[in-house]
Amino acid sequence: MSAHEQPATDMSPEEFRRQGYQVVDWIADYLAHPERYPVLARTEPGVLRRALPAEPPAQGEPMAAILADFTRHIIPGITHWNHPAFFAYFAISGSAAGILGELLSAALNVNGMLWKTSPAATELEEVALDWLRQMVGLPPQFGIIMDTASVASLCAIAAAREAAGDAVRRDGMAGGPRLRLYTSEQAHSSIEKAAITLGLGQQGVRKIPVDAEFQMDPAALAQAITEDRRAGWRPFCVVATVGTTSTTSVDPVPAIAEVCAREGLWLHVDGAYAGMAAVASEFRWALNGCERADSVVINPHKWLFTPIDCSAFYCRHAAVLRRAFSLVPEYLRTAEAEQAAVRDFMDYGIQLGRRFRALKLWMVIRYFGGEGLAARIREHIRLGHLFASWVDAHPDFERLAPTPFSVVCFRARPTDLPVGPEEERDAYFDALNQRLLDAVNATGRAYLSHTRLRGRFALRLAVGNLRTTEAHVQTAWDLLQEHAARLHAAGRGGAQEKAEAPWKG
Amino acid sequence: MSAHEQPATDMSPEEFRRQGYQVVDWIADYLAHPERYPVLARTEPGVLRRALPAEPPAQGEPMAAILADFTRHIIPGITHWNHPAFFAYFAISGSAAGILGELLSAALNVNGMLWKTSPAATELEEVALDWLRQMVGLPPQFGIIMDTASVASLCAIAAAREAAGDAVRRDGMAGGPRLRLYTSEQAHSSIEKAAITLGLGQQGVRKIPVDAEFQMDPAALAQAITEDRRAGWRPFCVVATVGTTSTTSVDPVPAIAEVCAREGLWLHVDGAYAGMAAVASEFRWALNGCERADSVVINPHKWLFTPIDCSAFYCRHAAVLRRAFSLVPEYLRTAEAEQAAVRDFMDYGIQLGRRFRALKLWMVIRYFGGEGLAARIREHIRLGHLFASWVDAHPDFERLAPTPFSVVCFRARPTDLPVGPEEERDAYFDALNQRLLDAVNATGRAYLSHTRLRGRFALRLAVGNLRTTEAHVQTAWDLLQEHAARLHAAGRGGAQEKAEAPWKG
Repeated sequence: MSAHEQPATDMSPEEFRRQGYQVVDWIADYLAHPERYPVLARTEPGVLRRALPAEPPAQGEPMAAILADFTRHIIPGITHWNHPAFFAYFAISGSAAGILGELLSAALNVNGMLWKTSPAATELEEVALDWLRQMVGLPPQFGIIMDTASVASLCAIAAAREAAGDAVRRDGMAGGPRLRLYTSEQAHSSIEKAAITLGLGQQGVRKIPVDAEFQMDPAALAQAITEDRRAGWRPFCVVATVGTTSTTSVDPVPAIAEVCAREGLWLHVDGAYAGMAAVASEFRWALNGCERADSVVINPHKWLFTPIDCSAFYCRHAAVLRRAFSLVPEYLRTAEAEQAAVRDFMDYGIQLGRRFRALKLWMVIRYFGGEGLAARIREHIRLGHLFASWVDAHPDFERLAPTPFSVVCFRARPTDLPVGPEEERDAYFDALNQRLLDAVNATGRAYLSHTRLRGRFALRLAVGNLRTTEAHVQTAWDLLQEHAARLHAAGRGGAQEKAEAPWKG
Repeated sequence: MSAHEQPATDMSPEEFRRQGYQVVDWIADYLAHPERYPVLARTEPGVLRRALPAEPPAQGEPMAAILADFTRHIIPGITHWNHPAFFAYFAISGSAAGILGELLSAALNVNGMLWKTSPAATELEEVALDWLRQMVGLPPQFGIIMDTASVASLCAIAAAREAAGDAVRRDGMAGGPRLRLYTSEQAHSSIEKAAITLGLGQQGVRKIPVDAEFQMDPAALAQAITEDRRAGWRPFCVVATVGTTSTTSVDPVPAIAEVCAREGLWLHVDGAYAGMAAVASEFRWALNGCERADSVVINPHKWLFTPIDCSAFYCRHAAVLRRAFSLVPEYLRTAEAEQAAVRDFMDYGIQLGRRFRALKLWMVIRYFGGEGLAARIREHIRLGHLFASWVDAHPDFERLAPTPFSVVCFRARPTDLPVGPEEERDAYFDALNQRLLDAVNATGRAYLSHTRLRGRFALRLAVGNLRTTEAHVQTAWDLLQEHAARLHAAGRGGAQEKAEAPWKG
């Protein structure tokens, strides 16, 4: 017999209540005092793996022992995405309402593959996505929740391929035309990954240059399409980005939509991050032109306080999407679907199994309300712009891209360097900023990430967590100034000896 | 101002604690009295949609109001997958330990795309999948958690395509050979859907006939490959199934592995359901031959009491899988990955975003232990076999397939029919069983699904929920007998008038 009294089936409801209270208490405490943990985990590869037994337990263990190991071994290896000083990548939030939504979903454990297998899961998904659509100002259209924007964009490109005809669904792509997709140099890697997966290949993606503000150049797009047609390619799809991952630049969707209309191409918009800005009326412009897109993805799990994963995919041609994916074996046929009275969401994507993600989204929208959500997004953008203004005002820092929303790309660039060749100066700045990033992240009091812009190493500060306040942004800025000054002083003194600091002024 | 006091950021920790207790109480009560709800939702299309406002709320609302609407409007539209009398499709369980795991994951809200973005998420995934691998007796190999078996199988086939060479990753499939995949007539629809998605087309899938027990015929497989090579196809992959969706038949993996080795094809095994039976030592045979497979998927969310979604994907060629999917933009580069000291799971699949699914799986394995899990799987198989024995012993019922695990395929087949043409008798039985299914499901006391086997409408009873006891199976059997007798008596009397009951004896 095991170390604890194991029931024949599952934990008793009374025990679940006791343990559930414990976990809720832990989370309440976690949310109340996030600053007690370093944002970026302070650990080394293999630490957790070595701390846990190499073999599974034969006997069950009491929940108290499991939760004790959770706090003892797992928490020290967590990078705290739900921490208010998480400024890396895109800062996200699991809000309280969303956390409770996930808890209820896990308890119901429905698989919403068919309307029949949980009518409320399907209909709440329709309602919540229609609410969200109205909140960001998209026209009425089909919506479906997917796990990630990576999958949503893959499905969009598959629908575009289906719309292009050529019996790809039946015959596959071997023997067919060489299809080509267009996206900007700044597009998310998931677009190229989708092209590889779908059998288009990396050659099937042509990356269009961007302007000085990292936005796709529509004239270059039109020219590329013309060239490709002449060279025997079949252009079929353009993926525009509203909020690129590096700089959150916004491609000129109205002009791109014009090109797509003229050329007969499917327009998909990846608005995973910045699409959410449109919840605030003064940022509604972010989705300008998207009313003409064939499909759009925006991510509530990025910037709408919904725990990961929840990606909202809209498509103006549900029938095409369905044609790209629907296969209904006998064991999944239902009378309701045959009467076309309901939607079976399994027909519109890759996955058959579909967890009940709409519940958390619906709870988040209701808890905050449209105005409450807009107020929080507005505040994050205010904080981003405030930080950008500090960078601009400081002689030893500079911004490396515009700041349309809440993400700032910048670097330390001390002005007291002797004149020298541009590339040597940039090499020094790259090394300095890499070390600055590591130093600030090592404090545990802020976590930033980086990117590379026109060859230069750039720091990225992304505001998006619900609990982030001006004080957190101020602390990050103080740390950046302090460590930049220290590292620069050390770097100048020791530059002759240090291979990592190639400045030789 | 809203109807309730809205904080500037998120719900206060104190309020989260209060609301969290409420939700835990509701779930404890739900788990204690699942029988108060009909298993299959009693609703009509559009009921929930019409009950909710067409427009999103502008102001936030108190959590109490949201939870009240959850129980008033949403619960009546739920089909209760976590109900002990859920016998449809594959019966699943969100166990208490798994539910608490999901709750903690939602609160941490980490994105485990990189080791660095939460070292514990990556390492716990390695540990939990290695434990599970040992529990089912697979050899040491790379493991990764995916959301669903649909996605895991798609990734497996993509890896097989990559292994086949031909620069598909770079050049796409348009100019390449016509690749062909083999799977049985009884394989899951996700395999064909993956082929469509990957650009192989439905023509790129050849379905191999099955024997009398619904198992792939390896001689027919070998012959098909030979024929196809002659006809100019390039065979590249075989997908065998351990536990097909209709009947849970097990393809002869050792013989199929032999064919794959001889022909140089990638062998992927879809063991989503029955792979879990191998946790019980006397069912270890289910995965026989899988030690030679190139990849295998088994689903903890199907039959290991882990809330949906959690699919365990194993692959003996991690480098090939990585080659099929890896693209690392600058903003995701880390020192740890460049030193090859850690695994970044984003490199091994489609999705960049990865929620912390390992936590619930680890908690489930620890809470039940290997022996506790085996005991529960054993009991489900005992219940399935018991039900099968009742069917076999009843003169007016018959089984339509073997019952290797916990799923029984059967039909009512009253013996008191006058002699008549076989097809007319079968048409009558089909109509009778369709009505029987609807009648039993309408009671709300059991929910079964159906399939079609050799043209015949078959009922399916799947045991898999943690709380299912012999009494639940007995009730389902009583309902089936009672309604079959009633419907048959009515059907014989009114057959002349009823187009749905074509029997004219």
